[in-house]
Amino acid sequence: VNALTFDGTEPLLRTDYSEPVLVAGEAIIRPTRMGVCSTDIELAQGYMGFTGVLGHEFVGVVEKVADSTDEHWVGQRVVGTINCVCGECDQCRAGIREHCRNRTVLGIHNRDGCFAEQFLLPTQNLLAVPDNVDDDHAVFAEPLAAALQVQRQITVINRPYITVLGDGRLGLLVAQVLSRLNATVRVVGKHPDKLKHCEKWGIKSRLLQDVGLRQDQDIVVDCTGSAQGFATAAQMVRPRGTIVLKTTVAPQAVQESPIDLAPVVINEINVIGSRCGPFDQALQTLSAGEVDVISLISRRVRLADSAQALKTAKQPGVVKVLLEP
Amino acid sequence: VNALTFDGTEPLLRTDYSEPVLVAGEAIIRPTRMGVCSTDIELAQGYMGFTGVLGHEFVGVVEKVADSTDEHWVGQRVVGTINCVCGECDQCRAGIREHCRNRTVLGIHNRDGCFAEQFLLPTQNLLAVPDNVDDDHAVFAEPLAAALQVQRQITVINRPYITVLGDGRLGLLVAQVLSRLNATVRVVGKHPDKLKHCEKWGIKSRLLQDVGLRQDQDIVVDCTGSAQGFATAAQMVRPRGTIVLKTTVAPQAVQESPIDLAPVVINEINVIGSRCGPFDQALQTLSAGEVDVISLISRRVRLADSAQALKTAKQPGVVKVLLEP
Repeated sequence: VNALTFDGTEPLLRTDYSEPVLVAGEAIIRPTRMGVCSTDIELAQGYMGFTGVLGHEFVGVVEKVADSTDEHWVGQRVVGTINCVCGECDQCRAGIREHCRNRTVLGIHNRDGCFAEQFLLPTQNLLAVPDNVDDDHAVFAEPLAAALQVQRQITVINRPYITVLGDGRLGLLVAQVLSRLNATVRVVGKHPDKLKHCEKWGIKSRLLQDVGLRQDQDIVVDCTGSAQGFATAAQMVRPRGTIVLKTTVAPQAVQESPIDLAPVVINEINVIGSRCGPFDQALQTLSAGEVDVISLISRRVRLADSAQALKTAKQPGVVKVLLEP
Repeated sequence: VNALTFDGTEPLLRTDYSEPVLVAGEAIIRPTRMGVCSTDIELAQGYMGFTGVLGHEFVGVVEKVADSTDEHWVGQRVVGTINCVCGECDQCRAGIREHCRNRTVLGIHNRDGCFAEQFLLPTQNLLAVPDNVDDDHAVFAEPLAAALQVQRQITVINRPYITVLGDGRLGLLVAQVLSRLNATVRVVGKHPDKLKHCEKWGIKSRLLQDVGLRQDQDIVVDCTGSAQGFATAAQMVRPRGTIVLKTTVAPQAVQESPIDLAPVVINEINVIGSRCGPFDQALQTLSAGEVDVISLISRRVRLADSAQALKTAKQPGVVKVLLEP
């Protein structure tokens, strides 16, 4: 089958990739839309040493299941959480399954991803997509869930000032989610063409170069994916304020811009790492039409052309690239 | 007067330093004991660009006050908080005075410190020392308050596993404070001669080299003052656990061991910066005899010999160096 792979040197479309072989508890899914995330771009540059099929954002149809008790999934339109867990380690038993000690992660860690004609996922990871959420919306379930995770991790009292730092894919989703709260939210970024989306959503936005770094924000969400993001966030957040780290930074970039934690100590900042979020809530939010994801779609590319697409997803002005079969 | 100063190149005992000149709201204090802290050692290497009289840990006697309403302080044995605040900025008005935007900090930022025969501090910073707390104990009020701050910032439920990383001055105080909580506390360090104190306090201790880095601690308090401390803490703390950063690291050391925040995101770790703490609680703790500070005193040095003492305070086995007039 066609699959976009990374072999350790560069992203490569394979047309002869072996068909997925069903194992107990899992389903074969045929994706109808796939989303390209910054993590894919970093993995395709060797980050975290991943090799195999890339991709973890999808909506698709279940083709086949291993277990007869899972037959009801066949033909169902689904999205899926990306952490495949053991159910038995201390984290799973404590109910923190996203942090399973033995997890594989779709297209990220020890498991082939969804940028393929077919791929595998445990049926326990699947969620049925409501009929009123079409594929172009449903494919945003994963990044929207990640954005909703920020909302779960922060405390919103006394109408706080919140800055979303970064105007990329994730930043624009996080901003929309947080703007529904009783808070003063602004997006600070470097790209006028991306920040312009905020206007139609009624969200304040500013260019980074025009913003005073006055340590006056209660909460700063770093969605920059850049090594400078943390230092900027530390200059924006007030003493005893909160920085939510939403994006990781490739080790090479860290080498070039070393991170200084002294401001965290001196200003007693609370830094919260934030990763995967609640898919059920993401589907509800999409079903209720509470966020605009369609405006974020910059480009649609066939899976067959995806190797090139991955290389150009970092081009100026590009927000979300969707892959289609 | 005699004063231990830093002029930008090296610590220097001045015998001709000018006497402090009283200004409104302040008191002249004659210290009877002074404590050497890692921050002093770092400042004396150029950290943060401080110049002037070093020192911020003291117990002493009030000699003179500027305002007649403060006369009751004269002759009183006191300790003092180190942040001298404006009372008018947003932080002060919000009750977060330690983070005053316009603060000076005793011997750390824009204010001469206490390693002198006499020095100045606002009377609003002073606390009377209970009679049953002698000078050798009272001089630990500042670092003990800093240790107590950790207790205020963490949530202790379900008997958490807590690792205090670092067996220096601050680590051994933090360990004693946290061991009074309903938690399983251990100290992990590199120095058998420092870790041995833990045994008599009934606190578990381990050499770093003997400890498995299994991401199984609920809370890790980094008291190492070393650039490697954070990475080690991130390898010890469980997913969704907490790292308390208690010590800053000089910028040069950060350059040599760059900090990687990716584990914070991936494991959704909560990092909390921790600085100054409650002096009133520190004095109560000392008065109640709840922590052993006397065992931490490694060496006593005359102020006149303190320049050399500062240089040797990093010697193996040295925990606390006290200065005497």
